[in-house]
Amino acid sequence: MIRNFTIDHQLNHRTIRKFKDQPLTDEQLTTLFEVARQTASSEFLQQMTIIRVTDPQKRAVIRAVSTQPYVGAAGELLMFITDLHRNELIRHHQGNFDDRRIEKTEMFLQAYEDTVLAVQNVLIAAESMGLSGVILGSIQNEPAKIINKHTFPTLGLQLGVPDQEPQLKPRLPLNKIIFENEYQDIDPASLKDYDQIVNTYYDLRDTSRRIDTFTDQVNGAKLNGTPQVRDQIAQVLHDQKLCLDL
Amino acid sequence: MIRNFTIDHQLNHRTIRKFKDQPLTDEQLTTLFEVARQTASSEFLQQMTIIRVTDPQKRAVIRAVSTQPYVGAAGELLMFITDLHRNELIRHHQGNFDDRRIEKTEMFLQAYEDTVLAVQNVLIAAESMGLSGVILGSIQNEPAKIINKHTFPTLGLQLGVPDQEPQLKPRLPLNKIIFENEYQDIDPASLKDYDQIVNTYYDLRDTSRRIDTFTDQVNGAKLNGTPQVRDQIAQVLHDQKLCLDL
Repeated sequence: MIRNFTIDHQLNHRTIRKFKDQPLTDEQLTTLFEVARQTASSEFLQQMTIIRVTDPQKRAVIRAVSTQPYVGAAGELLMFITDLHRNELIRHHQGNFDDRRIEKTEMFLQAYEDTVLAVQNVLIAAESMGLSGVILGSIQNEPAKIINKHTFPTLGLQLGVPDQEPQLKPRLPLNKIIFENEYQDIDPASLKDYDQIVNTYYDLRDTSRRIDTFTDQVNGAKLNGTPQVRDQIAQVLHDQKLCLDL
Repeated sequence: MIRNFTIDHQLNHRTIRKFKDQPLTDEQLTTLFEVARQTASSEFLQQMTIIRVTDPQKRAVIRAVSTQPYVGAAGELLMFITDLHRNELIRHHQGNFDDRRIEKTEMFLQAYEDTVLAVQNVLIAAESMGLSGVILGSIQNEPAKIINKHTFPTLGLQLGVPDQEPQLKPRLPLNKIIFENEYQDIDPASLKDYDQIVNTYYDLRDTSRRIDTFTDQVNGAKLNGTPQVRDQIAQVLHDQKLCLDL
């Protein structure tokens, strides 16, 4: 395995949800924003916006939406927004009022990619500074509370000085997720060893909680079809005039 | 600005489309795959798969789909697949044949995020090794030629030893893309200086081509509503039994 400063951090990535009450410096923040700015952008359309949330009331709303007590509690809270609105305004300014492309699924996905690429880039930059973070998919629980037309709140990123040291979470073996030339269907029975590793991980992490395996989780509520609050995402996208062709 | 080995690479990121005819070592590849594996995963569902494309015929198909002559020409070609099929199979193995959650937009977006986060993570690892790359959104031009049920080819990543040294592409100023607490509509007239910077960039890059600005590009064909091959993405997602609630 090749190791260097960057890869060492990447291989040691763990999600941190508890931060010291120690704010980021302006220099740290500016550097993170510059890294976001330099992230690859599909077709150079730059359809990504970040909102730094410092207002305690807004942080409380996002915490409530996320249903996680650590969200917005300590550390910086950045909202990464898939933003097709900026280019819409630029077009309108020139008299181009045809928004059909902006409202198509393919353009939404392009902008969504720009946004998610920037999240990972900023997280890595933060980790290289000795900070840690948690990516918050939970801001999509009730996106309607957060957004404007032609925008979609994609991921939150909470960053700070870590105040916990969790174990590395064991991932699926490489031979289950990387293939050459042909996709290969998984043989679920072949996950027995991996399930045991995950089981041990949970056991060591929190002896008071139910011990779980990977396949237990996949077979459980996470992928059940029972109604969930996020089911409204399809409607919200349409309300936002996004993915209108879906 | 804070600088370190990681951030230096991130701030110097440029897309490279021309690679030397020098393959990656097995050690480099394994390291990149391990980095992909350690990328954050929403709800620990690990819904991302990578297919390394070495077969010249398959590379030619992807090149044709991408309509870019450099795609698959030199360097490694990795296809990052949004993969809800693996967990579907694990559930079926346990007698869970309710795939409704897998077929919802919110779960597709979660898996899509996992996949795009891994792309950026691998690109940064490659750049830290002195390699370079290009993210290929163009594999979505004709996704139907590539995929299986409950999967979606998200992004390609072509990597190799760089054989060109382009200038850094000037991005939108920070004050246009980063806000505190409130989204702010752009004033398109305020992009005059930035347009001049982009114009100079293109002029220096290729004096034989039409000189362009950012707002020219946004006002041009990229966001026009005229039919494009990618318009089929909405239908392809549905054919793949994805985003069925949209």
